[in-house]
Amino acid sequence: MSVVDLFGQPLQVINIGLESFAQNLRQEGVPVVQMDWRPPAAGAKGVGEAPLRVDREQANREAVDRLLRGQPILTGVSTAGEAIPGMRRDLFLHAGPPISWERMCGPMRGAVIGGILFERLAASEEDAQQLAASGAIAFEPCHEHDAVGPMAGVTTWSMPVWVVENRTFSNRAYCALNEGLGKVLRYGAYAPPVIEHLRWMATELGPILASTLERHGPLDLRVLIAQALQMGDEGHNRNRAGTSLLIRELAPELVRIKVKRKRLSEALRFLHSNDHTFLNLSMPSAKCLLEAAAGVEGSSMLVTMARNGTDFGIRLAGLPGRWFTAPANLVRGLYFPGYSELDAALDIGDSAITETAGLGGFAMAAAPAIVQFVGGTPQDALRLTQEMYEITLTESQTWQIPALGFRGTPSGIDLFRVLTSGILPSINTGIAHKDPGVGMIGAGLVQPPLACFQSAYQAYMQQYAATSSQPAAACLDNQPIKEDHR
Amino acid sequence: MSVVDLFGQPLQVINIGLESFAQNLRQEGVPVVQMDWRPPAAGAKGVGEAPLRVDREQANREAVDRLLRGQPILTGVSTAGEAIPGMRRDLFLHAGPPISWERMCGPMRGAVIGGILFERLAASEEDAQQLAASGAIAFEPCHEHDAVGPMAGVTTWSMPVWVVENRTFSNRAYCALNEGLGKVLRYGAYAPPVIEHLRWMATELGPILASTLERHGPLDLRVLIAQALQMGDEGHNRNRAGTSLLIRELAPELVRIKVKRKRLSEALRFLHSNDHTFLNLSMPSAKCLLEAAAGVEGSSMLVTMARNGTDFGIRLAGLPGRWFTAPANLVRGLYFPGYSELDAALDIGDSAITETAGLGGFAMAAAPAIVQFVGGTPQDALRLTQEMYEITLTESQTWQIPALGFRGTPSGIDLFRVLTSGILPSINTGIAHKDPGVGMIGAGLVQPPLACFQSAYQAYMQQYAATSSQPAAACLDNQPIKEDHR
Repeated sequence: MSVVDLFGQPLQVINIGLESFAQNLRQEGVPVVQMDWRPPAAGAKGVGEAPLRVDREQANREAVDRLLRGQPILTGVSTAGEAIPGMRRDLFLHAGPPISWERMCGPMRGAVIGGILFERLAASEEDAQQLAASGAIAFEPCHEHDAVGPMAGVTTWSMPVWVVENRTFSNRAYCALNEGLGKVLRYGAYAPPVIEHLRWMATELGPILASTLERHGPLDLRVLIAQALQMGDEGHNRNRAGTSLLIRELAPELVRIKVKRKRLSEALRFLHSNDHTFLNLSMPSAKCLLEAAAGVEGSSMLVTMARNGTDFGIRLAGLPGRWFTAPANLVRGLYFPGYSELDAALDIGDSAITETAGLGGFAMAAAPAIVQFVGGTPQDALRLTQEMYEITLTESQTWQIPALGFRGTPSGIDLFRVLTSGILPSINTGIAHKDPGVGMIGAGLVQPPLACFQSAYQAYMQQYAATSSQPAAACLDNQPIKEDHR
Repeated sequence: MSVVDLFGQPLQVINIGLESFAQNLRQEGVPVVQMDWRPPAAGAKGVGEAPLRVDREQANREAVDRLLRGQPILTGVSTAGEAIPGMRRDLFLHAGPPISWERMCGPMRGAVIGGILFERLAASEEDAQQLAASGAIAFEPCHEHDAVGPMAGVTTWSMPVWVVENRTFSNRAYCALNEGLGKVLRYGAYAPPVIEHLRWMATELGPILASTLERHGPLDLRVLIAQALQMGDEGHNRNRAGTSLLIRELAPELVRIKVKRKRLSEALRFLHSNDHTFLNLSMPSAKCLLEAAAGVEGSSMLVTMARNGTDFGIRLAGLPGRWFTAPANLVRGLYFPGYSELDAALDIGDSAITETAGLGGFAMAAAPAIVQFVGGTPQDALRLTQEMYEITLTESQTWQIPALGFRGTPSGIDLFRVLTSGILPSINTGIAHKDPGVGMIGAGLVQPPLACFQSAYQAYMQQYAATSSQPAAACLDNQPIKEDHR
């Protein structure tokens, strides 16, 4: 067929594989038949073929419906001790799946030491280490207490926390206030200035913001995040717009708080100095949205992705409370001068909750400027978001990406789609130094280990396979699998 | 040639016309020979062919160099009477090229009436009309007093103004504070609440911002605009990011001003309520950058595009002070419910100074979300910016567009390129009701009339053609030409 023949007649297309090609053609008015086919991927053998005792698609529709209907509202600022369910003075919350002091990575140990010093449970680094190792302090995941924490995520009794409520389902999520960049607790730093700064946040910033929000009333974070996505944020590693919108929203009330003006000015200057202020609001927003879907019988949608610097863990809506873990990966990205991958801790933090809800790496096309921070080109950012539509169940109705014609962000990761496509979720993240006390050394992109998804699939099939079949081992091959049964 | 033959061998391309096609291919590693050819455009015959007594390209390099080296810095807030050179109590500045009361459009007349009431030069609308028509008040363009004003642009003695200084060349530009949306003076409204609001701005907002900036010190607007472009602004019709960045920058100082907290809160709430706050800073930034290039002998770069609602006027770097005008166009765009083009005033305002400096419509690719305000699709926004590279002399070194791989915005419009390409500048703008007192009824896109460029070309050739030739009439055909010689 000559070029003239090919282009001289109306196109009719059968598209095999990636649906986005077909969508582009449909937008041009070309008739397309879509063939639902994907290339075979590692670990994908047999996935989705065995009969189930539940209607998985119906269950996922229910989970997605709960995700999309949620309304995260900032209602106030409290303290971890007052607000977080099950909090105790001798309980330290941390990022990621459960972990013991012995298995904690450097930055998380550093943050625990800092938390002990901040709470005045010990007076020196050595005493703090000893206390942490003694068993006198319990360690539990933030995620098991309706909370989330970036990087080490260490959250203790006296820390101020944002309180975010999902108005539709009346559940709440909590997150400590962001400490800023540089040497900070969440990256494992615990020198005296770090602890002093935490005390200032507890005694000054927290109460000022609490009073400000009392004056202001509830603040709709779903709408604020939607605006931020139209202003170049993706809600994980770029939060400049969200932080700016928060400050302009709160400043008119903050100025009226009965506290000396100099102290109000310091609070405003700190918020202004730290573009990550809003990360600690996008995270609990995502958390309370997803939590509403946890427990939907039969759903294979992820409600958690979280890392403690040693293990990566995921949780499914249909298997609530169960973690499926595997060793965390190294982050690939841009390092600050003088540092390299040799200095890096493994992937750490609860901030991947943003990706789980359709933000962060999943909304990267909204934030082309982020490639200056995590590496790559604006085209990579577009491509990454477009890829995530292949593993998600739906598109956000509120969070839109202007550069993709206001298409909703890819939302609701499906375990089965990940395994059949072989496409892993893409996460934007910061990079901590592997040693306690150093801090942030870069930022980049990371994926969860495939093994988390393989063991989750095994557990899902054990729970939901029709009794006649035993296909659970089909996809496992020789991958290392680890499930933490608690 | 069959499809296989065409695609089976390495591509070699001769590209005729738009250079951007060649650039795309070069990025893919395809060798390209670029033919410098453009389709014949209306009025283009003979342009650029006649010998000149100046080196136009060298002159334009000098003009561009001045444009790119400028550094707009916000240094303070003053009043028009105190700060603007040549200001008098009986002088009203207005947008666009010179115009008499008799020829003013409805919104500009409304704004003049409002200005008279605000300055207490008359007590009633009727008296104000009479005063305006009596000749007792002089009308001169903002642009002839180092100032700019959006829409009607009426600027009077007592109004507070932002003071922006071009640090590189020590020239200044001034702009009144933005009044917000709805019924406001710049759209021709002058009812009592409009005047009261102007008084509040003069007695409260202006002094508060003046004190805030004294505490804060100079603020680099070049950098702030660069950040805003990475956050979805284009600096003309979308200024949400610029406004947010300004508020977070000033709030820590504003809170310390010795004024009652309630009044500070009102000032902050007003700034927060009005996303166009920053327009009145992007405009004088553009103005003081371009003014530094005015007077470069032989340059065909535009230093002004401005409209008074009756005429559109442009000015050239190489013909300083001379306006080339033609009847203003209707704006095509999205109208608020209940309004249509039948209700619209013609194109009005000095805000096209942003496009003249490489912002606004020229930076539209940075602001895909703006299409929700002015119409079109995000792809149109990309295309419009890409087209503007065809008529500009350079690319900004500071103002970058993430979606175009951080390419600098197209900057420095060349009269000759406009005429030879037949591509007119694309301007984002608001739409005023044609009657005084109504206000804004929509927003959209507009182009200058070609005749401005034709008469500017005629004047340029009269000034700069080598004595032996007389090609000035070559491009004029039957277009209506008007030059205002002052």
